Amino acid sequence: MKFEPVSQDLKVAYLGGGSRGWANIFMRDLALHPLLSGEVRLYDIDFESAKINERFGNWIGTLKNAASVWRYKAVETIAEALKGADIVIASVQPGSLEAMRADLEIPQKYGIFQSVGDTVGPAGIMRGFRSVNIYKYFAQQVAENCPDAWVINYTNPMTVCTRTLTKVVPQLKVFGCCHEVFGTQAFLARLVADEFEVPPPERHEIKVNVLGINHFTWIDRATWQGCDLLALVRNKIENDGCMRPYSKSEVLNWNDYFHHDYQVTYSLFQKFGILPAAGDRHLAEFVPGYLSTEDECYRWGFSLTPIQYRYDRWNSRSQKRLDYLAGKEKFNLVHSCEEGDRQIQAIVGLGDFFTNCNMENKGQISNLPLNSVVETNAYFSHDCVRPVAAGELPPGVRIMVLRHVQNQELTIEAALQKDIDLGFQAFWNDPLFHIPIDKAWKMYKEMLHATAEWLPGWRIDSRSNLK
Amino acid sequence: MKFEPVSQDLKVAYLGGGSRGWANIFMRDLALHPLLSGEVRLYDIDFESAKINERFGNWIGTLKNAASVWRYKAVETIAEALKGADIVIASVQPGSLEAMRADLEIPQKYGIFQSVGDTVGPAGIMRGFRSVNIYKYFAQQVAENCPDAWVINYTNPMTVCTRTLTKVVPQLKVFGCCHEVFGTQAFLARLVADEFEVPPPERHEIKVNVLGINHFTWIDRATWQGCDLLALVRNKIENDGCMRPYSKSEVLNWNDYFHHDYQVTYSLFQKFGILPAAGDRHLAEFVPGYLSTEDECYRWGFSLTPIQYRYDRWNSRSQKRLDYLAGKEKFNLVHSCEEGDRQIQAIVGLGDFFTNCNMENKGQISNLPLNSVVETNAYFSHDCVRPVAAGELPPGVRIMVLRHVQNQELTIEAALQKDIDLGFQAFWNDPLFHIPIDKAWKMYKEMLHATAEWLPGWRIDSRSNLK
Amino acid sequence: MKFEPVSQDLKVAYLGGGSRGWANIFMRDLALHPLLSGEVRLYDIDFESAKINERFGNWIGTLKNAASVWRYKAVETIAEALKGADIVIASVQPGSLEAMRADLEIPQKYGIFQSVGDTVGPAGIMRGFRSVNIYKYFAQQVAENCPDAWVINYTNPMTVCTRTLTKVVPQLKVFGCCHEVFGTQAFLARLVADEFEVPPPERHEIKVNVLGINHFTWIDRATWQGCDLLALVRNKIENDGCMRPYSKSEVLNWNDYFHHDYQVTYSLFQKFGILPAAGDRHLAEFVPGYLSTEDECYRWGFSLTPIQYRYDRWNSRSQKRLDYLAGKEKFNLVHSCEEGDRQIQAIVGLGDFFTNCNMENKGQISNLPLNSVVETNAYFSHDCVRPVAAGELPPGVRIMVLRHVQNQELTIEAALQKDIDLGFQAFWNDPLFHIPIDKAWKMYKEMLHATAEWLPGWRIDSRSNLK
Amino acid sequence: MKFEPVSQDLKVAYLGGGSRGWANIFMRDLALHPLLSGEVRLYDIDFESAKINERFGNWIGTLKNAASVWRYKAVETIAEALKGADIVIASVQPGSLEAMRADLEIPQKYGIFQSVGDTVGPAGIMRGFRSVNIYKYFAQQVAENCPDAWVINYTNPMTVCTRTLTKVVPQLKVFGCCHEVFGTQAFLARLVADEFEVPPPERHEIKVNVLGINHFTWIDRATWQGCDLLALVRNKIENDGCMRPYSKSEVLNWNDYFHHDYQVTYSLFQKFGILPAAGDRHLAEFVPGYLSTEDECYRWGFSLTPIQYRYDRWNSRSQKRLDYLAGKEKFNLVHSCEEGDRQIQAIVGLGDFFTNCNMENKGQISNLPLNSVVETNAYFSHDCVRPVAAGELPPGVRIMVLRHVQNQELTIEAALQKDIDLGFQAFWNDPLFHIPIDKAWKMYKEMLHATAEWLPGWRIDSRSNLK
Repeated sequence: MKFEPVSQDLKVAYLGGGSRGWANIFMRDLALHPLLSGEVRLYDIDFESAKINERFGNWIGTLKNAASVWRYKAVETIAEALKGADIVIASVQPGSLEAMRADLEIPQKYGIFQSVGDTVGPAGIMRGFRSVNIYKYFAQQVAENCPDAWVINYTNPMTVCTRTLTKVVPQLKVFGCCHEVFGTQAFLARLVADEFEVPPPERHEIKVNVLGINHFTWIDRATWQGCDLLALVRNKIENDGCMRPYSKSEVLNWNDYFHHDYQVTYSLFQKFGILPAAGDRHLAEFVPGYLSTEDECYRWGFSLTPIQYRYDRWNSRSQKRLDYLAGKEKFNLVHSCEEGDRQIQAIVGLGDFFTNCNMENKGQISNLPLNSVVETNAYFSHDCVRPVAAGELPPGVRIMVLRHVQNQELTIEAALQKDIDLGFQAFWNDPLFHIPIDKAWKMYKEMLHATAEWLPGWRIDSRSNLK
Repeated sequence: MKFEPVSQDLKVAYLGGGSRGWANIFMRDLALHPLLSGEVRLYDIDFESAKINERFGNWIGTLKNAASVWRYKAVETIAEALKGADIVIASVQPGSLEAMRADLEIPQKYGIFQSVGDTVGPAGIMRGFRSVNIYKYFAQQVAENCPDAWVINYTNPMTVCTRTLTKVVPQLKVFGCCHEVFGTQAFLARLVADEFEVPPPERHEIKVNVLGINHFTWIDRATWQGCDLLALVRNKIENDGCMRPYSKSEVLNWNDYFHHDYQVTYSLFQKFGILPAAGDRHLAEFVPGYLSTEDECYRWGFSLTPIQYRYDRWNSRSQKRLDYLAGKEKFNLVHSCEEGDRQIQAIVGLGDFFTNCNMENKGQISNLPLNSVVETNAYFSHDCVRPVAAGELPPGVRIMVLRHVQNQELTIEAALQKDIDLGFQAFWNDPLFHIPIDKAWKMYKEMLHATAEWLPGWRIDSRSNLK
Repeated sequence: MKFEPVSQDLKVAYLGGGSRGWANIFMRDLALHPLLSGEVRLYDIDFESAKINERFGNWIGTLKNAASVWRYKAVETIAEALKGADIVIASVQPGSLEAMRADLEIPQKYGIFQSVGDTVGPAGIMRGFRSVNIYKYFAQQVAENCPDAWVINYTNPMTVCTRTLTKVVPQLKVFGCCHEVFGTQAFLARLVADEFEVPPPERHEIKVNVLGINHFTWIDRATWQGCDLLALVRNKIENDGCMRPYSKSEVLNWNDYFHHDYQVTYSLFQKFGILPAAGDRHLAEFVPGYLSTEDECYRWGFSLTPIQYRYDRWNSRSQKRLDYLAGKEKFNLVHSCEEGDRQIQAIVGLGDFFTNCNMENKGQISNLPLNSVVETNAYFSHDCVRPVAAGELPPGVRIMVLRHVQNQELTIEAALQKDIDLGFQAFWNDPLFHIPIDKAWKMYKEMLHATAEWLPGWRIDSRSNLK
Repeated sequence: MKFEPVSQDLKVAYLGGGSRGWANIFMRDLALHPLLSGEVRLYDIDFESAKINERFGNWIGTLKNAASVWRYKAVETIAEALKGADIVIASVQPGSLEAMRADLEIPQKYGIFQSVGDTVGPAGIMRGFRSVNIYKYFAQQVAENCPDAWVINYTNPMTVCTRTLTKVVPQLKVFGCCHEVFGTQAFLARLVADEFEVPPPERHEIKVNVLGINHFTWIDRATWQGCDLLALVRNKIENDGCMRPYSKSEVLNWNDYFHHDYQVTYSLFQKFGILPAAGDRHLAEFVPGYLSTEDECYRWGFSLTPIQYRYDRWNSRSQKRLDYLAGKEKFNLVHSCEEGDRQIQAIVGLGDFFTNCNMENKGQISNLPLNSVVETNAYFSHDCVRPVAAGELPPGVRIMVLRHVQNQELTIEAALQKDIDLGFQAFWNDPLFHIPIDKAWKMYKEMLHATAEWLPGWRIDSRSNLK
């Protein structure tokens, strides 16, 4: 038998390679990784944007503190990107910004408000329908062009996208990554700093047991140097007056749509006894009440992201790459603190790694359904990502999480079958609904029509009562 | 071995034997049953009312068309009632009418409306807490005094009461009976009559496969003479214009709080494809939207039962028994069409019987948790009640049903542990909630205080944030 | 909607319609059924034999006490038999008698003896491989020609044949029938007669709760008139000296290869506490020890069926039909006490029926895997056969039964994939094996070669170590 | 909140502290660990032997290359050992050598041979009965004296001992350690060395995915530097002529009862496709055939351990400690390559660690029952040991493993209930049995009588047929 050392000439396919956000982060981190090198093929339905990233990525490699050399190349077909790839990155926008506008604005007419709209709620489910369509295609293409590659998903809705890949082609090697839990670790690190008057510990020093689903993840155990951090949070809530109603003007004055003050987090922790590990703006979409009116969110210290903001960011980020290339803006090549490069390092056999990720449930959460996608810690090693058994969710939390697990499975099933009736069952079961079923159906029809171009093959008008 | 023929000298213990409603129905049916006879011991916390039933029961036996002789006897202790009993009937009011008033009125202040309030929703859960306390005691008493008896529960919340008995003493022989599905069979019989221009068939000629939980039961197959009745319902909805919005005045003019026009039934059938088998007033409490405002229910063609009505009925029924005894009102000894007597007949070995009932899930519904109490068809034979495998709920319906199954399990667990925090988790997970968690907690505290005398040992004031 | 009364013009397809045994029984019972009539299409790979049955069946209809008229017709293709059928009977010989000879004789060379050889053990598994091939074809043909028909299987291995049908085409309506449990009911009826000095009760008066798998079925509850019959058996074992070693000559003197004296039954009942409900000759093949040597079976009071006997019966039965038709032998048209006609009656809507049968586990046995085929009581009604929940097997019995359930699933999977390695795993896991793995493999190869013509597509010689 | 750094003053309770084997290994490794120090309390029913270990342990600490200081102290009660302990080591002999002699010799009279006799088979089950009795007591004592301690079990039967602890007191923190898998890693390392002509890699460089139960553990994935080692094994079997029959004299000439030539391993790997990860002498006891006669084992290249050998080792090891202390024999303080010290290091928070261990199944093997004890990889961190999800066993292997899982659960249940009938069901279900049930029962009685003093409260003579 011939023995080949682990290849350093990695072939990475980037689906969504015209990305204005994530791709740029990923390029930086790769450039700074001393052990990895190879080629990145950028595929995007917006080829021009992929071309810009090609220039941008190659330019980064020329910077003084770049530690490794990567060749970037925009390609015109998905097959060119995938052929023989070792790693596939999937990070796309499932549908246009116009579709996302409809996702958010139509429900508002019916009294349903969403702070993010990319995971659950009517907006998340519509986005899910679109994503299933796209990810089914990705799954088939990967199976054909690089069946042994590892596919890393970054797109939201994380659970739906990740699950679709292996639902369509079960033997694919897939996991999904999200930095939401990092935020909770950083929050706990600040608590440690306050409490013990030390500098905030590094994130990896905050040991957590993670369980749940993406953006509705929970931590039932957190320690730093053996110190119980959930007890710290409990004390804070009981003693510090950290929970209070906020006023609308106070919140709007923050001038940061993403800011929140952990009021949803604290209230759920207080009532359920384990710590939600996602930002308040995500959490509020998974349970009823926090978004029951437009103003209710302010009282809890967070705001709705205006759709205009998303348009503005979309445009400004695109320009930014050009400005860097043109030297109009100074570019600092520093690591993003994201983990994609570190995970790839482990997968190619250059050092085991322990973190959290989204994978099919193979038992890691013993009281959620097998094969649904869940988020727990995982152990990364050579060509192998194994979830770490996280135990079970407490019964009260499990009810809330299981509801979404089932709804997301139903969302995928409906989208694969292009079955609008089944899709409605998932839609109406979402906790953000508090409107009568006939109005929910009307709203559903309206949303389907608005996003119809992204749902090829759905016979949206075929049903008599869908007029 | 000595062989004894099946005893006809049955010993029946009636817990709640002062009952103004169910007991009277049961007495009539027993009196008309030619094969059964024996003794009924009436136990009630209202001993005077049990004494009236004693007189009433014995008087019925003297009527001309009575077919069998039963001795009724009011007893002062539960042990006297249960000692050596073959059959135990449990049919009680779990808490006072005052408690029920609070169950309904406090939530209204918070914008939560309930049409019945005895099964789920905040009222049903509070009633559940009280019931667990009572049924735990019943279970222990039965285990001590008549461990081989069959216990038949008629009290609501049906699922919670029935499940508590075997959760506390697993080896008890228990099932629960409800006539709600009979109503759906009658509805289908009328459809048959209309469609085929025949007299409405008898209920048992309408063959159904029943699955779900009490008051949220579903029928996925219904035939008469081999004719598919769900297809009939489907046609009716598509062609007959049977679905429409109702006006408040129209509904209030019905002068019957229990009347409904199957609008909730039709809408759920249309969207989920299988037929809900309970009255609209029950169904509306299991799903969001139909009761989202006080007036919304009128639009769906049903109304809320005023608490005053319950007081009036409570008083008038009590008087009625006295009027019958005094000859002031004419009494017709006719069968109620309930099934208690027929079930007992099968259990004592006098003829097998097929109907529906509530029992622990031993697999009869394959996608609901084992050991939770579910409602399906069952086969009654000598000393043996076996559920008939009903298959599985369709995924969209299962999400809705499972949520209540889990909530009811949590309600029982919380009440057995007298744990107010756990109780709140069940409470807030109920679909009737669409209010923020802090307001839900305030309402929960208020409701607990209002019903505190029925929750001995609960440390309702012990938690700092329960002020 | 048009209403059609249940059709009496039934279309029955009989696969294996040349059958010398079962078909003749079935024809008699149909002829005696006053409510059913129609047409039976006889399909067999031995067309001549089917032609004889055509004549025979039509002749029976002319007998004086025939109660209904059935038209019998031998057909040359399976499609002719199945097209538009309401009921499909499957009762075939899976492979030739030569194949069965090999099933029995090859293992004997390796020291493995089988009393029947049609269900488990090396013979049963080889027969299973052949059956899967045949039943996969049946499933596809039914799906194409009469997808709404009910398929009733009578072929052994019962579990493997029945399960293959729905494994291949999940939506088929299938159950399997075996009279083995009737024998246990008759045994219990004789016990009742002895104990109470009454005439033996009818079989249906012996109420049993049945659970397990075909030929390894168990009864955990049996009553007559409320009397506990398992207690009777227990007494008999403890007091009556009914258990003893037998001598070979005693057993051979019985001159009836099928006779047994319940010694296996008693010994298993004594050690496991619930009653095995199959003849000793079947039971002995499911557990180790009773067949550990050729002579051991005599000690337990049963014998091995010589293969010559099967040849003789095959030939004599064929002749018998001709002798009846020729008037050489007197024919009595009496009911067989089998239940096929009664089950069909219930399925066409002419009266519900309660008996035992083999069906996919939909929860009726809560501690065996879902979807495996199990045997329990079932409730037959119009176009609907629903298993009755039988509870769970005690843990010690479950270990023994589960092993076979898993082996049978693996047998089917291996045969569908035509995978000889997987097949060997099921083979060697059978409890009759007590030989080393290399010898087991040699024997396996030999058996596969002997039956190779019935295993088209298996690459029996492709594996290097299969020489 | 006060923050205390992780204590280095560990309190270790050693149950079985008079141990002649394992304790000495453990003492060495602790002495060489630079980061850990504290106190070890030695408890043993043989107090004198514990006293010798006290002297021995303290003496080791005085040696030149000792890296840390540990105080050893023999104590007379288990409570003294456990009070306030951080770590509990359980490593005992469950019953006397006389009991073990009976475990092995009685079955031989019935034709049942065992190569080790400490895990499964009649000897393993008897040893299990005794162990349950002892470990139930340990569980209760730990719960009373040091409920927060980590309990590390080293005693065989590993699964039964480890599972008993949490079955009796579910909240205990328990895992069990065995080095059997290390042997398979070393075997693979030698293969690597042979194949690539490199020095054998360190054990931790051989990456494996472990799943199964102790001594019947399997590896479905093994790599070194990304090279697939199972493919190496496959090649070896196909090409190298490594499989052959051995002669008795050849095997006996080895003069090492523990030597084996991987013939059982190879044959199971060949037929089941994944690699068994325990020595042949263990593996052969889990499946039928390899031990079917006394001589069969020689043919497979391994031998039975004579009971005399165990007596000799018991005595010689005891003397050895005294010889070291007296300077009669030279003592080398070197690390054993066992992992106890490294695991403790991780648990006290001094560095995460990845290895394999035995723990309750929380989903880490998705097709074995929850809560049974299984062996997989695990991730050790501060006060936290989490299994790593290992996926599922292939169906053919699962049948074999599940049988033992169920038998071991039944063994524990029988021993906790002191129920000899239940115990027999586990006993007879063991694959080493190929004798008739009546003889098995006779043998069972004989074995129970021989070990009766270790089974207090078992009413061994109470059952009429146990004479």
